[in-house]
Amino acid sequence: MAPSRNLHPLEKMFTPQNIAVIGASERMHSVGHTLMRNLLAASFGGNIYPVNPKHSSILGKKCYPSIKSIPAQVDLAIIVTPAKTVPAIVAECVEAHLFSVIIISAGFKEAGAPGIALEEQILFHARGRMRIIGPNCLGVMRPSTGLNATFAHGMALPGSIAFLSQSGAFCTAVLDWSLKEQVGFSSFVSIGSMIDVGWGDLLDYFGNDPETKTILIYMESVGDAKAFLSAALRVSYAKPIILLKVGRSAEAAQAAISHTGSLAGNDDLFSAAMQRVHVLRIDSIAELFNMANFLAKQPVPKGPHLTIITNAGGPGVVATDALIGMGGQLTTLSPSTIGAFDAILSPHWNPNPIDVLGDASPEKYAKAAQIISKEKASEGTLVILTPQDMTDPTKTAEFIKPYAHLQTPMMASWMGCDSIEEGKDLLNQYQIPVFAYPDMAVNTFASLWKHAKEQQPLKIEKTEHLDLCDFHKVEKIIQNAQAKNRTILDEWESKKIIQAYGIKTVPTEIARNVDEAVELAQKFGFPVVLKLFSLTITHKAKVGGVKLNLNDAPAVIKAFREIESSVGQLAGPDHFQGVTVQPMINWDGYELLLGSMTDEQFGPVILFGLGGKLVEIIKDRAVGFPPLTKIWAQRLMRQTKIDQAINESSLEQTLLQFSHLIVQHPWIKECDINPIITLKDDLMALDARIILHDAHHKKEDLPKPVFIQRKE
Amino acid sequence: MAPSRNLHPLEKMFTPQNIAVIGASERMHSVGHTLMRNLLAASFGGNIYPVNPKHSSILGKKCYPSIKSIPAQVDLAIIVTPAKTVPAIVAECVEAHLFSVIIISAGFKEAGAPGIALEEQILFHARGRMRIIGPNCLGVMRPSTGLNATFAHGMALPGSIAFLSQSGAFCTAVLDWSLKEQVGFSSFVSIGSMIDVGWGDLLDYFGNDPETKTILIYMESVGDAKAFLSAALRVSYAKPIILLKVGRSAEAAQAAISHTGSLAGNDDLFSAAMQRVHVLRIDSIAELFNMANFLAKQPVPKGPHLTIITNAGGPGVVATDALIGMGGQLTTLSPSTIGAFDAILSPHWNPNPIDVLGDASPEKYAKAAQIISKEKASEGTLVILTPQDMTDPTKTAEFIKPYAHLQTPMMASWMGCDSIEEGKDLLNQYQIPVFAYPDMAVNTFASLWKHAKEQQPLKIEKTEHLDLCDFHKVEKIIQNAQAKNRTILDEWESKKIIQAYGIKTVPTEIARNVDEAVELAQKFGFPVVLKLFSLTITHKAKVGGVKLNLNDAPAVIKAFREIESSVGQLAGPDHFQGVTVQPMINWDGYELLLGSMTDEQFGPVILFGLGGKLVEIIKDRAVGFPPLTKIWAQRLMRQTKIDQAINESSLEQTLLQFSHLIVQHPWIKECDINPIITLKDDLMALDARIILHDAHHKKEDLPKPVFIQRKE
Repeated sequence: MAPSRNLHPLEKMFTPQNIAVIGASERMHSVGHTLMRNLLAASFGGNIYPVNPKHSSILGKKCYPSIKSIPAQVDLAIIVTPAKTVPAIVAECVEAHLFSVIIISAGFKEAGAPGIALEEQILFHARGRMRIIGPNCLGVMRPSTGLNATFAHGMALPGSIAFLSQSGAFCTAVLDWSLKEQVGFSSFVSIGSMIDVGWGDLLDYFGNDPETKTILIYMESVGDAKAFLSAALRVSYAKPIILLKVGRSAEAAQAAISHTGSLAGNDDLFSAAMQRVHVLRIDSIAELFNMANFLAKQPVPKGPHLTIITNAGGPGVVATDALIGMGGQLTTLSPSTIGAFDAILSPHWNPNPIDVLGDASPEKYAKAAQIISKEKASEGTLVILTPQDMTDPTKTAEFIKPYAHLQTPMMASWMGCDSIEEGKDLLNQYQIPVFAYPDMAVNTFASLWKHAKEQQPLKIEKTEHLDLCDFHKVEKIIQNAQAKNRTILDEWESKKIIQAYGIKTVPTEIARNVDEAVELAQKFGFPVVLKLFSLTITHKAKVGGVKLNLNDAPAVIKAFREIESSVGQLAGPDHFQGVTVQPMINWDGYELLLGSMTDEQFGPVILFGLGGKLVEIIKDRAVGFPPLTKIWAQRLMRQTKIDQAINESSLEQTLLQFSHLIVQHPWIKECDINPIITLKDDLMALDARIILHDAHHKKEDLPKPVFIQRKE
Repeated sequence: MAPSRNLHPLEKMFTPQNIAVIGASERMHSVGHTLMRNLLAASFGGNIYPVNPKHSSILGKKCYPSIKSIPAQVDLAIIVTPAKTVPAIVAECVEAHLFSVIIISAGFKEAGAPGIALEEQILFHARGRMRIIGPNCLGVMRPSTGLNATFAHGMALPGSIAFLSQSGAFCTAVLDWSLKEQVGFSSFVSIGSMIDVGWGDLLDYFGNDPETKTILIYMESVGDAKAFLSAALRVSYAKPIILLKVGRSAEAAQAAISHTGSLAGNDDLFSAAMQRVHVLRIDSIAELFNMANFLAKQPVPKGPHLTIITNAGGPGVVATDALIGMGGQLTTLSPSTIGAFDAILSPHWNPNPIDVLGDASPEKYAKAAQIISKEKASEGTLVILTPQDMTDPTKTAEFIKPYAHLQTPMMASWMGCDSIEEGKDLLNQYQIPVFAYPDMAVNTFASLWKHAKEQQPLKIEKTEHLDLCDFHKVEKIIQNAQAKNRTILDEWESKKIIQAYGIKTVPTEIARNVDEAVELAQKFGFPVVLKLFSLTITHKAKVGGVKLNLNDAPAVIKAFREIESSVGQLAGPDHFQGVTVQPMINWDGYELLLGSMTDEQFGPVILFGLGGKLVEIIKDRAVGFPPLTKIWAQRLMRQTKIDQAINESSLEQTLLQFSHLIVQHPWIKECDINPIITLKDDLMALDARIILHDAHHKKEDLPKPVFIQRKE
């Protein structure tokens, strides 16, 4: 009896008809008891089958000795028995043709080796046969159907936010707060330790769930990163995904091994990945709550223009500071709006923030809100109220209600405590999000607008096609190196490879002896540069292997001999295979860095920024992921400061070519082009270094780009 | 009858015995009525004299027709009459020998020209004769004496924070919130538009006020910057000063103009100045409230080591992330502490955050708090509680109370709303600051610790004395230029000046003609640099006036001619007075910028950072104020990234020398040393440009350093 083909695999988790509670209990405060109570208390319309061999009934419901003895097809089993009993119970569930199980019980991997063994037993029975949420979780809620399959106190209000949390405690705190602030949820999921169902599955499900308009995530570990990223990429185009990811400090402590990899921390990569899949990553619990409060009640802002109505100057100034600081703007009021305000305000009123003055009545607030509701330039309204002598916080809340759910979002900030409490409750009831401080409101508004704005161009972008790329030339160089068991390409090979993808390089030739070096120098014209040519040494400068500004033949001869002897002394004569000769470029531009590395979780990564000797000092750089498109190339550039100094189109072109190289040649493990310099309207690589994956890998197992560009 | 010489000039504002209320009223909700009610309602022990010619008594108090008719010496008059009547009333107060007046009335400079005229009339009468707070303010409170001379609703709790606000609305919001959160104040001052009493006066008063331990400021404009800065410098050594200064953005500054009629200064300079006077500048209202909540109830942290007790993992991880992100550290528990926890926690407990688990009883929380109170390495404790099945938020608050006021600060974060409300109220009552979210608590703790830490080295620092500085040589060069009516010094003069203060410069000599140029080039040795020598042109490169890397005499001759002709064409032959010759420095270091400018509010300012062509792109620089001491020089350096690349002691020495130059020669208006380059362990200026103040200034009127180093 397989589930219908049209059903999402998790459908029965969230819309079960028959639920078994394995480990249901009569003992007050036990999880098995609270869970039964919650299921019975809400208006859930299906059937509940407690399972416990020691009882014949629990809370008035007939109790069954085992899952097999239930006389109906169970859609969802919730297991709350001790950890060591769970594997056998899961086996029974599989036998009974269940497809959905929630394991509430704790005592698995968090308890060390014995717990890990239990998890393996569970997976042995369940893998490929059923889906499991948990273990070590609080359960799930589906407020619109009255399903409360958790052991939390109380039930969430119905609404449009799916809250997915890796911490049960966060679930209870958010629940408590949401009841007070009247924030409603489509679902509440405590994901537990993700033995089976992970972030990707849940995103996929809630992406398709018509009740869910926003997805809010508290994450401690990402688990299956690829599944999460690909689901996020699909879903985030239709529904905002807001993420609080913790564990920055732990990740920061881990040392990066890879060479170019040491330039970007893991957390930076994670943030870049979130940007790529259009997930809004936030940093604090306050933001999590504020975002939920806003999105549960109001639409996403369509633009940055905010109108502020306030009965006090100070809070208006604070709000304006925050708005401008976030890149938002105050609405410029139209003449008709100004005219309407002239009629109700004192002569010297300031057009935005609109100070209705300390004695503003509820009627004046309402009139101001009404005028603003007709102002086409306004893309959001913030109503600030401070308790002053003539202020009526409660009536003001009531009076602005009619203007709260028109085209643009309305927010409120009723400042203070006891005296405004009743008004605040009303605002929540009217689904006007109310913030403790006006700057918090503004930050929430501006973050959501910026996030929405970033998505717009992506919806229409096409993938680029480049003709310049000589795939086979690169393959040949790589195969040639692999044939000789080499993974480190020399400077000459590396430059040939990037050249093959249209990146200009300084002419570079190999000289095996002094005569060849002089000959090449004369061919290029003085001054020239000599660099060590070695199949083994990559850091040439460290062994005295770089000589700049050589003005004549004697200087070239001297330099050749010096490099040879210095390498011989510092590394051994075997490391000297000659020199490369290249013209000395005297330019007046900037030194950039362009590189790639391969990350275990995120695959190939592209790094761009300020290069040269300042690279480790200024750290003006950003990471992105191949394949780059025009827009992603531009975003990568714009996250650096050095970007301002460079011809945009040539840099964009170079980034796209580099991205193609990385995508089409998965053997490339790392690539460092440092420096690549700016010449008038062009870029030119002065040095390059490529490292390959070990040849014993199968080509199809090599890390590939995680972020495949979506098709139109 | 002048006030006693030992009294602070503002003493009678805050501890008056006899108070006149001019404009007292029987009309409900009028300011004059509310103010009378507030004065009468609190336990203030002195006498209140309503003044209003239309009444014989107000609220049961005998009413007087004028200030003169009051039969006692009035200490403080509070004026609430319409703006246009205020100047005459102030004149009467002066006649009646009053020394302290609070003007509540609005309608002055915020109302445009007529209001400004009224202010001038007030000052005409009052200047030098009495002190005035206001106009356009809410008044002042002194909770410990029961003085409530405001028209706010309610009275603040007594405590140790002085809250000074330029927004009346902020006063009412803070008041409302403080009553709920049990935050007490030594004083509450609404400063209004600062016609007389400004920030400097108030800081001075509360710096000496034994009841005040912390000063909290909401500021829209700084007013008399020097008075504020010098008072802040004195007071901040003994009492934390926390400042929310708004008006960062242009738009916000505009809003502030129309609000209080004041200007906001350059924000970066302002921030640097706050750092210099050890004022903790914060950015949001939430921080203002959080800091007040912490400092009202707990001591300033002595170190960064925080211990976290929590009944849930997630919030502990969030708190840890925030702590590490702010530069704080988790306490490393000692063996005896670990032993004590082993006895009460499950086998796999994690030493910090200490997870007492979801079923933690109040007793277990208390035991954990008790153990931590004995841990010497712990410099602060955060107790996190999330509402779980077995949790008792109220009892837990009660049980941890005994450990809340020992050596180190304790904070709490009871997460949620209704279910923890009672516990939260108890914590507030016990003066344990409770934060909505654990990361907020951590941020508050870490900010206060960092701020306290920054002050420590300053307490013991001596001013540096440098012998290298040739004062008279510089004076002579300056006088010589002034004698010729010049304010722009040429490169040669500028370099001689900085040389005189021990800053190494590249040898630079003037050549009036080609022959002199060749001769100098041969003296220095090739390659050399030729630069335009002009008494009028400062941007030499723009007129083709810089030629680098000249390798022989013919090259020098060619370069000389090219500069001459290019300047002749682009600017005119009058601008060519020859060239300077200097050896070409081929170095492998970094280009820095060292400069000074003169700000209207803050006097001379020193700028340091990355120089050369990246200067405007990367903007890696910081501002500081002369006189620099070793510590201030180091702080200036450490605010840049390029600092890491430079020999610390030579840079420090150079900064100190430069600071002396600026301090000892106030004629220097601007100085640009760009680039000054790094050579092994040394710095060398390649270019320099100095601009003087106009000679028609009197020397004693020239802007001087605002920040005089405090003496031991």
